[in-house]
Amino acid sequence: MSESQAPADAMLPLTKRELARLLTGIENGAPAAQRILRERYRHSGKARTIGITGAPGSGKSTLVAAMVQGLRARQHTVAVIAVDPSSPFTGGAILGDRFRMNALAGDAGVFVRSMASRGALGGVAAAVADAIIAFDTNGFDVVIVETVGAGQNEIDVAWVTESVIVVEAPGMGDEVQAIKAGILEIADVVVVNKADRDGAAQTASTIAAALEIGRKRAWEVPVLKAVATTGSGVDELLDRLAEHHHYLQTSGKGQWRWEHRVQHDVLNRLREMLLRRMLGQLPPDQLSQLLAAVARREVYPTDAAAELMNQSSKP
Amino acid sequence: MSESQAPADAMLPLTKRELARLLTGIENGAPAAQRILRERYRHSGKARTIGITGAPGSGKSTLVAAMVQGLRARQHTVAVIAVDPSSPFTGGAILGDRFRMNALAGDAGVFVRSMASRGALGGVAAAVADAIIAFDTNGFDVVIVETVGAGQNEIDVAWVTESVIVVEAPGMGDEVQAIKAGILEIADVVVVNKADRDGAAQTASTIAAALEIGRKRAWEVPVLKAVATTGSGVDELLDRLAEHHHYLQTSGKGQWRWEHRVQHDVLNRLREMLLRRMLGQLPPDQLSQLLAAVARREVYPTDAAAELMNQSSKP
Repeated sequence: MSESQAPADAMLPLTKRELARLLTGIENGAPAAQRILRERYRHSGKARTIGITGAPGSGKSTLVAAMVQGLRARQHTVAVIAVDPSSPFTGGAILGDRFRMNALAGDAGVFVRSMASRGALGGVAAAVADAIIAFDTNGFDVVIVETVGAGQNEIDVAWVTESVIVVEAPGMGDEVQAIKAGILEIADVVVVNKADRDGAAQTASTIAAALEIGRKRAWEVPVLKAVATTGSGVDELLDRLAEHHHYLQTSGKGQWRWEHRVQHDVLNRLREMLLRRMLGQLPPDQLSQLLAAVARREVYPTDAAAELMNQSSKP
Repeated sequence: MSESQAPADAMLPLTKRELARLLTGIENGAPAAQRILRERYRHSGKARTIGITGAPGSGKSTLVAAMVQGLRARQHTVAVIAVDPSSPFTGGAILGDRFRMNALAGDAGVFVRSMASRGALGGVAAAVADAIIAFDTNGFDVVIVETVGAGQNEIDVAWVTESVIVVEAPGMGDEVQAIKAGILEIADVVVVNKADRDGAAQTASTIAAALEIGRKRAWEVPVLKAVATTGSGVDELLDRLAEHHHYLQTSGKGQWRWEHRVQHDVLNRLREMLLRRMLGQLPPDQLSQLLAAVARREVYPTDAAAELMNQSSKP
């Protein structure tokens, strides 16, 4: 609460263009972006953060759009971060079906941004954590983090937001049933979307049963039905999310989760930082020679890693 | 080719039970497993490795079972590694619908194993690379690595196998279309499974069009149709995979890819090794005190990571 000691200009709201530039800087690991975030970080922590994940075809993006409209109706400003799996080969991000959000593009209280990592220290998880700081300190009430596509960032969302929505849809096949046990563990709220389709009730009861198997929690995970295309069920979802936020605030669980997120975030950045420093200190050719020996199957990969590490500890 | 210098017993085939124990040791990061792999690594490189990925509901597991039967009919021995996304909270692995493979369980030429990472240095990617060494040096002709579930390991499979199959199915929704651009980049062969369903031809042509957009490659990625439940199309898939293997061997592309995989693998292990060493060297409480300062929003996460790193470089 020492805001009076902050530079007077530290918390000036950024223009939409400045914010967009900051987000690009975050993706690229730009030092200027890091400087801005360092200044703003102490003022963060006001926004609610909501993660949303689920299998392709579950209708996540449509649900996010409906949530944004509902939150706007409640006078909340909303930022949406869509996490794009980066291609390992081109570094290119997938746009996804963002078109549904375009209807909201004229609203100054909404900011939608796809994020990928193109060199950010700590990868996309750190980039998203930084983007949350940017939105949070720029006055957005709610930040929604949506995983896009095949869900390779599925688990990560639990490490960057305070609440997690898992979206399911009826009739997604038995493989989806199989993954529920894992994905459901990160759920604070489950939404069975496309609830006007056959099998929605069964999907919901299957999920409820799966949740029962888990250990008892102080927060009972609600399984809600929704039809994102019509907005049906979205108000109840927003109510339950508000309840979850209240639960986190009052139970101490929110603080506990925040400390875990901080630990995950710092170690994630540190891991990458240590690697970059070490590689920077290596004599030229040493890495490539060692890698060539591994490629010739003369040195086992863990031994190569150990040799590089021991090298770096010599004076 | 210096096999004569290897200890005479280094390449004794492991019994099924020894192999299972080695794989468990790999998952757990057991030093004994590392010693065995270190000895065996120089003898690796004989097995063909095939990754298979795709969205939930595409029928990956059924296709893998059909591929195993087809490979057995061709007198190949086959190991299947099913990569299970680990829960971040319990460390538990998801079993998935492995039951389809049970029909093959009596066949000594088939070994099916779910893998998760429970402490392996470098996470599940390193564990899978190690499991490949184990199978490869135990006489398996083909190792198939299947990502299970929501596909969070989707991209990783490109870093551990020489060929990658991407499985699609008709009518998986527009979100699936959106991800194709990214997932297709890692594909050497695309299979439209459930090709007896409506829309299969359209799905195949959409994918073929998406592949056209990409840069020209020496290897033209085939888009095949299959019905895994009946085995239809599986023979052609195996033929094309054999062609791809030949292409990799003769074009130099296989060596190029192998070197990239080695680099990825070694750096992945090194990153984790550096972090573990650093955390082990820290004075007690320093990490927790710094993390507490980050949680209080007094220190920006990257600055905390930098402070820890600089601490470790002091004499």
